[in-house]
Amino acid sequence: MTDPIRVTVWGENVHEQDDAQVQKVYPDTMHETIAAGLRAKLGQDVVVRTAWLQQPEHGLTEEVLADTDVLTWWGHRSHGDVDDAVVDRVQQAVLSGMGLIALHSAHFSKIFIRLMGTTCSLDWRSEDDRELLWTVAAGHPIAQGVPHPLVIEQEEMYGELFDIPQPDELVFVSSFSGGEVFRSGCCYRRGQGRVFYFRPGDQDFPTYHQPEIQQILGNAVRWAAPSSPRQLPQVHHRKNPGWFQAS
Amino acid sequence: MTDPIRVTVWGENVHEQDDAQVQKVYPDTMHETIAAGLRAKLGQDVVVRTAWLQQPEHGLTEEVLADTDVLTWWGHRSHGDVDDAVVDRVQQAVLSGMGLIALHSAHFSKIFIRLMGTTCSLDWRSEDDRELLWTVAAGHPIAQGVPHPLVIEQEEMYGELFDIPQPDELVFVSSFSGGEVFRSGCCYRRGQGRVFYFRPGDQDFPTYHQPEIQQILGNAVRWAAPSSPRQLPQVHHRKNPGWFQAS
Amino acid sequence: MTDPIRVTVWGENVHEQDDAQVQKVYPDTMHETIAAGLRAKLGQDVVVRTAWLQQPEHGLTEEVLADTDVLTWWGHRSHGDVDDAVVDRVQQAVLSGMGLIALHSAHFSKIFIRLMGTTCSLDWRSEDDRELLWTVAAGHPIAQGVPHPLVIEQEEMYGELFDIPQPDELVFVSSFSGGEVFRSGCCYRRGQGRVFYFRPGDQDFPTYHQPEIQQILGNAVRWAAPSSPRQLPQVHHRKNPGWFQAS
Amino acid sequence: MTDPIRVTVWGENVHEQDDAQVQKVYPDTMHETIAAGLRAKLGQDVVVRTAWLQQPEHGLTEEVLADTDVLTWWGHRSHGDVDDAVVDRVQQAVLSGMGLIALHSAHFSKIFIRLMGTTCSLDWRSEDDRELLWTVAAGHPIAQGVPHPLVIEQEEMYGELFDIPQPDELVFVSSFSGGEVFRSGCCYRRGQGRVFYFRPGDQDFPTYHQPEIQQILGNAVRWAAPSSPRQLPQVHHRKNPGWFQAS
Repeated sequence: MTDPIRVTVWGENVHEQDDAQVQKVYPDTMHETIAAGLRAKLGQDVVVRTAWLQQPEHGLTEEVLADTDVLTWWGHRSHGDVDDAVVDRVQQAVLSGMGLIALHSAHFSKIFIRLMGTTCSLDWRSEDDRELLWTVAAGHPIAQGVPHPLVIEQEEMYGELFDIPQPDELVFVSSFSGGEVFRSGCCYRRGQGRVFYFRPGDQDFPTYHQPEIQQILGNAVRWAAPSSPRQLPQVHHRKNPGWFQAS
Repeated sequence: MTDPIRVTVWGENVHEQDDAQVQKVYPDTMHETIAAGLRAKLGQDVVVRTAWLQQPEHGLTEEVLADTDVLTWWGHRSHGDVDDAVVDRVQQAVLSGMGLIALHSAHFSKIFIRLMGTTCSLDWRSEDDRELLWTVAAGHPIAQGVPHPLVIEQEEMYGELFDIPQPDELVFVSSFSGGEVFRSGCCYRRGQGRVFYFRPGDQDFPTYHQPEIQQILGNAVRWAAPSSPRQLPQVHHRKNPGWFQAS
Repeated sequence: MTDPIRVTVWGENVHEQDDAQVQKVYPDTMHETIAAGLRAKLGQDVVVRTAWLQQPEHGLTEEVLADTDVLTWWGHRSHGDVDDAVVDRVQQAVLSGMGLIALHSAHFSKIFIRLMGTTCSLDWRSEDDRELLWTVAAGHPIAQGVPHPLVIEQEEMYGELFDIPQPDELVFVSSFSGGEVFRSGCCYRRGQGRVFYFRPGDQDFPTYHQPEIQQILGNAVRWAAPSSPRQLPQVHHRKNPGWFQAS
Repeated sequence: MTDPIRVTVWGENVHEQDDAQVQKVYPDTMHETIAAGLRAKLGQDVVVRTAWLQQPEHGLTEEVLADTDVLTWWGHRSHGDVDDAVVDRVQQAVLSGMGLIALHSAHFSKIFIRLMGTTCSLDWRSEDDRELLWTVAAGHPIAQGVPHPLVIEQEEMYGELFDIPQPDELVFVSSFSGGEVFRSGCCYRRGQGRVFYFRPGDQDFPTYHQPEIQQILGNAVRWAAPSSPRQLPQVHHRKNPGWFQAS
């Protein structure tokens, strides 16, 4: 029997404070809703905690990150308020092997932009689009048990051109009522860590209550969990040719 | 001044014989229409000939292939009638460095399946879909000068899951009126050769008359043209360690 | 608790019949040695059977393949004797989700060439090279617990240019005493299946007895095991726009 | 006739001030040597200027970058002295379409780390290794006319694990006397720009005087030159569904 995957669900927790529409859709906050969905889907295979912007060090201390196998990140209005020192720390954790799942408007989070190296800009429209999410990677573990297409009745539109490095694996592509398309499920490996960007999840819509979305997030947590002990890649001065046989 | 790119436009030329709708849309045949579009777009940078299924050796003799930098391929109803020996020859030419542009229903051509190794199956509907073709690779040479999106008023729908290896570069993604999506512009390198799959171009619709489509085909011809002398990768028995310094 | 992974280890079993050197190094045959290594490394997580060229249908009947999650393939002298119908069947199984691990000279097996679409040619020298196998994908599950570098005291040399499609993930690169390099651990996804090519394992050397090599093969079996029910990608005629909401 | 490619060769120009060995090997500085090599190889197809750390704004003003199609970057001892505002500017230029060629110890430059998102760490030894550079991408334009292998009699060793995102295209792999390997020629697309990392070129060795190295740098300049007008990917609020047909 393997140890449960330790997940930290991070939320910006700003819309929840002052936005009646969000409070109505997510009375328990977005991060608690995401956490509950993971617990429901993964059961004993997972231990889930939450953390949020307003906590000391945004709830992401060295201790918490050291105890986290997979971090999910949702942010939107307050990307600029995230302390650079915490971003450094999260980046080091990812490169050392911690998984990261960047959700929806986290495309513009400091941590995601850092790991991508690009602008991460995109087109958008927040009206009444229906989103259809199609699997383009047959048999991929993150697509396991996901309907084809997955229908989200109402969502914000994100459209190409999404300025990201070409994904190591592209899993989902969405279309919207307006005819736009978007690379909605993108896998990256950075350092020892795995990164998954997942598009749906605007604060105004009940997306994270939808069981198929919870299924994808659960799959992504399993996929992003590290398979090796955590270690930051480092410089080694190999002075002696044949150093590897010195013992 | 560089030599012009030598292009051979290959057509199945079957619908053109017995299908009144196709004869109306493509009175000069599909392959002659494609060839004329390339000449219009690329001018003196290109020398274009055509070849078709009903010719001896389907018009693709050793001599023709040796004189071809980029081959475009359109087929649909008669994939099974293409001689395996000719397919072998085309595959060798591609792996040696000749570019190949597989058009629309050529996803099921013997040569494309050979080079991909997968089923190349997909979903489809031939009714009255509008296709929107979106660029997802910023600054890619095949997308140069292409509107975003490119609108095709009527086309056959191809939908995911398209069973292909993940493209080395994904350039275009389409959406359709029904909400389906498709990876419509896919780049591969195989051996010394470059392969581009381009989705639009059903026989029932005037797609190849559309200037933006001709623009993409012209870009693709430039992209697929070989940059090195043609050579089939081969086995070498390197008996002597240090063989590379023997001279 | 999950079901054990069902592995079939396929061997050409030809050197073992008439080659005294191979008989000395692999008195139990190569395939039984590989199978024993997997059992030793993976224990109850795996059920391993063997099959070989000289059996009816080469031991790879529909029933056996339907009961196989991961197939390993070693062949060298008798690639041409493998029945095309069996190759078809194995290819269908891979595209439906069965994992395939192609070992050493299996780069020239019919099944590997089919799945790659290229010549799969390379340079070689079978003398007294030492191979150093280096991990280039930090934290990849197939590299878990593998020394960096892994030293193989004597092996056949395979050198670039290895004519394969660019791997979806490159895990290992080897160097040899003569200074040559080789992409020794290459991951591909084809259809629903996963394919891993692993270079070491010439019949003249005791490579498959080496615990670190067994570690890699065990890791590769876990990596290649399917995560979804097996299904061959197929064509669907989606006549009705909105078919996905018909229910 | 096309316009010449405008190249800016940037040098740190620090070793050249106080290091007798470097002064002996590169009496004209490293950047002037690289620039001369490009002029020799590319002739009228190129216009080359140089810039260096000690100039105002490191010689990389808005005007210079706007007038640069491809920037080459060599740095080693003074990465930390490069002004962050200049790094921002260079990054914006790359994402807008300017090509970047990062040379040798520039793996640790601020601009390269920014674009990669990883630590970019590696193993090293600066003694008397011979480097063999092997082509692994058949027919790639950057490998055109390059011997296989290319022999560099003396160079610093860089060894895996090189902590970079998996290259979009891997062109060269090196081996060293000590048996180490390295991914020496790595292509990336970031935003509209193209990035090429090229390993050889330590300050203590006459690598940039070697004609085969100049050949590769010339090839890389052609490859990295933009094919579209420069434009930074940006956010667009597409309020109106069907905005693309509004005209």
